[in-house]
Amino acid sequence: MARNCFSLKKLDLGARAGELATPHGLVRTPVFCPVASQATVKTLTPEEINGLGFSMLLANTYHLYLQPGVSVIEKMGGLHRFMAWDKPILTDSGGYQVFSLSPLRRIDDEGVTFRSHVDGSEHRFTPELAVEYQEALGSDIMMVLDECPPHDGTRAEVEEATGRTHRWAARCLKAKTREDLSLYAIVQGGSFTDLRQKSAEHLAGLDFPGYAIGGLSLGEAKSLTLEMIEAAAERLPKDRPRYLMGVGSPEDIVEGVARGIDIFDCALPTRVARNGALFTPAGRINIRNAAYREQSSPVDPTCECYACRTFSAAYLHHLFVAKELLFYRLATIHNLTFISHLMETIRDSILAGTFGALRRDFMSTYRPTNERTRIQQKEKWLKKQRSE
Amino acid sequence: MARNCFSLKKLDLGARAGELATPHGLVRTPVFCPVASQATVKTLTPEEINGLGFSMLLANTYHLYLQPGVSVIEKMGGLHRFMAWDKPILTDSGGYQVFSLSPLRRIDDEGVTFRSHVDGSEHRFTPELAVEYQEALGSDIMMVLDECPPHDGTRAEVEEATGRTHRWAARCLKAKTREDLSLYAIVQGGSFTDLRQKSAEHLAGLDFPGYAIGGLSLGEAKSLTLEMIEAAAERLPKDRPRYLMGVGSPEDIVEGVARGIDIFDCALPTRVARNGALFTPAGRINIRNAAYREQSSPVDPTCECYACRTFSAAYLHHLFVAKELLFYRLATIHNLTFISHLMETIRDSILAGTFGALRRDFMSTYRPTNERTRIQQKEKWLKKQRSE
Repeated sequence: MARNCFSLKKLDLGARAGELATPHGLVRTPVFCPVASQATVKTLTPEEINGLGFSMLLANTYHLYLQPGVSVIEKMGGLHRFMAWDKPILTDSGGYQVFSLSPLRRIDDEGVTFRSHVDGSEHRFTPELAVEYQEALGSDIMMVLDECPPHDGTRAEVEEATGRTHRWAARCLKAKTREDLSLYAIVQGGSFTDLRQKSAEHLAGLDFPGYAIGGLSLGEAKSLTLEMIEAAAERLPKDRPRYLMGVGSPEDIVEGVARGIDIFDCALPTRVARNGALFTPAGRINIRNAAYREQSSPVDPTCECYACRTFSAAYLHHLFVAKELLFYRLATIHNLTFISHLMETIRDSILAGTFGALRRDFMSTYRPTNERTRIQQKEKWLKKQRSE
Repeated sequence: MARNCFSLKKLDLGARAGELATPHGLVRTPVFCPVASQATVKTLTPEEINGLGFSMLLANTYHLYLQPGVSVIEKMGGLHRFMAWDKPILTDSGGYQVFSLSPLRRIDDEGVTFRSHVDGSEHRFTPELAVEYQEALGSDIMMVLDECPPHDGTRAEVEEATGRTHRWAARCLKAKTREDLSLYAIVQGGSFTDLRQKSAEHLAGLDFPGYAIGGLSLGEAKSLTLEMIEAAAERLPKDRPRYLMGVGSPEDIVEGVARGIDIFDCALPTRVARNGALFTPAGRINIRNAAYREQSSPVDPTCECYACRTFSAAYLHHLFVAKELLFYRLATIHNLTFISHLMETIRDSILAGTFGALRRDFMSTYRPTNERTRIQQKEKWLKKQRSE
C-alpha cells in the first residue's frame, strides 16, 4: 500500500469508504474512534470495546503526559501494552487540551507553557516534544501540535494561530523519527471560510499522510461547523484520510461523512451516556425521565446491545437514579453500540451506493438535542473540566 | 430434601460443608454472597458475578423499598427478573439498615419509624410489612425484621432489643404466606455471651429453616465477634444453615467457617476494592502506593482474575490515581475472585478433612488490616452513608 497507507475503495456522492493500514492492523473507514483520554474508554475494558466492533481508539497525550507520565508508559512497553489494546491508537498532540482545559497558558513561537488542570503545576509543550511524547507512547497515528484559537476569536487572532499551527506542523514533520508511525497535520482557520481553505492548501503542500480538521468542537453553531468542514475538505488531497477532530454525535457523523470525512473521534457518545442520554433511532432519550420508571421493555427494542438484551428501561432508570456505577457502563455500551452500528450501516451504504438515501432517512427520523442545549452542555462540561 | 432445604455433607472440626436447596437452585456451603444492596453488585453485571463463581447474592429490602420501591420491582416481575439474576437471592429485612443508616428512628413494639438516609422522608417498617416486601421481591431467603442494638449498648438496652427481636421473629413467621420462600431468624444479644446463647435457644425453639447471627458488624473488636459467634452457634440446631450477617473479610470468613458458619455476606471485599485495597495471599495491598507506579507485573501473579491476567499493577495504579471508573470494576473483579477462590478452597478442604491445615496456613500468611484501622474505616463509612 502507498506510504500514506490509505486506499479509497468507493465514493458515493461526497461520502468515502476506504481502508487505512496501520502498524496494528487495518481500519475500515469511515471510522469512529471511542475516546480513551487516560488510556481507558471510561467504564469499559479493551475486550468490550473490541467486542463492540471498534477498530481504533483515541488517547490524549496531554492527559497521559500529566498522568501517569509518558516515561512510565514507555517503560511499561508503550501505550498498547499498557492499556491492553492491540489495535490501532490515534493520539491527539495535546494542543486542543492545552487550549481547552488548562486554566493558564502562555504561547510563543517556540511552544506553549501551561498549567495542569489537575494540580496547577507548570509544563511546556513544543512541536518537537509533542512528537517525542507520541513516539514514546507508540501511537499508530500522531497529531502535530497545533494552536487552537477560541471559536469567537477575531480574524487577526485566528490568522496568527493558524500561521503558528502551520510552522509547528513543519517542525513536527522534521522532528519525527519513527518511520512506522504516521503524523497527521491539523487544519485550523476558525470560523473563516477562506482561512480554512488556505490552511488546508498550505498543509496539503507539506505532503502529510493524513489531515485533520481541528477547532470545530468548541461550541460554535452546527451549520458553521459543516461549512468549515466543506471549506477545508475541498482543498485537501483526495487520496489522504480526513479526520474531523472531537466532533461525533450521530447526526454530526452522518453529515461529516456526507462531506468526505473518514475518521471521527468524540467523547460525546460516552459522556452523554453517563449523564443519562441514550441514543435511539428516534433520537436521544433521557433515562431519568419518570416515564421509564416502570417500563418493562428495553430502552430500544431494536438495539442488540447487552443492556437492551438483558434489562428493562425501568432497571436502567433505577440504576441512574440510585447513582449506581453499573449504569455508566450499561449506558456507555448502549451508546457505543449505536455508534458502531451506525458506522457499519454508513460504510455498507457507501459501498452499495445508497448513502444518500440512508442520510435522508436518518436525518428525518433522528431527533438531536437542540442547538442551545448542545452548546450549553459543552460549555458546562468545559467549565467543569477546568475547575477540577 | 427436608423442608429446611439444607443438607450437611461433611463436618471437619467445627467447619461444615453442606448443600442448600432454593427455588432458584442449589447453593453449596460455606457460601459467600456478594452484596447487591440496590439490585446491583456495584460495577458488575450479573453475567460477571456468575462467571466469578458466585451462586447467591444479597439484596437489601431497605434500599429497594426506598428506590425504586418494592411495587416497581414487583410490577417488573420480581427482583430476579429486574436485575437479570436467575440464581438465589437472600434479602435482609431492613432491620440493620434502619438502625445503621437512618438518621432518626423511633422504635415501639409494633414496628419502627425511620427517615430515609437519601431524602429524609419518613417511613415505617413492621415485621409483617418486612415479610410482605420480601415476598413481593421474591427473595429465596428472607430475613425477619430485627432490632439491632448498638455494639456499645448496655445490658438492659440489649436485653430489650433482643426480646423485641424474638417477638418480631414470631410475628414474621406468622405473616409469611409464600411456601416456596424461606424465612430465617436473627440471633441478637449484643456483646453478652449469655444473651447470645439465650437468643439462639429461644429462636431455635421457633423452628426456623435457617438462623442468622446479627449485629456483629458494628465496629466491635474482632475477638468479641468470634466469641459471640461461638456462643450463638453452639445453641443453634445442627441441621439448619447458619448465616453470619455483614461479616466477610477473608480472615473473618476463615474464622467464621471454623466456628460452623455456612453463609456469609459482606460489602467489605467490594467496598475496600473501590478504595484501592486489593486482596493478595500475603494480605491486603494498597494500589495507591507509589511502589506500584512502575510495576509491570500484575498485582498478584498467582491470581487468575481478568485484571491480573490482562493488566500490570502500574496500569491499575494509574487508573486509581486518575479516578477512572474502570478501576472500580477491575478492583471489584479482583477482590471477588479472591473471595470466590477462598470459598472453593475452604469447601474442598472441609470435604477432604484438611480444613484445619488450610486455616493455619491462611492465618499465618494473610496479613489483615489492623484492628484500629478496620474500626475507623467502618465508622467513617457509616458516617458517610448517613450524611449522603
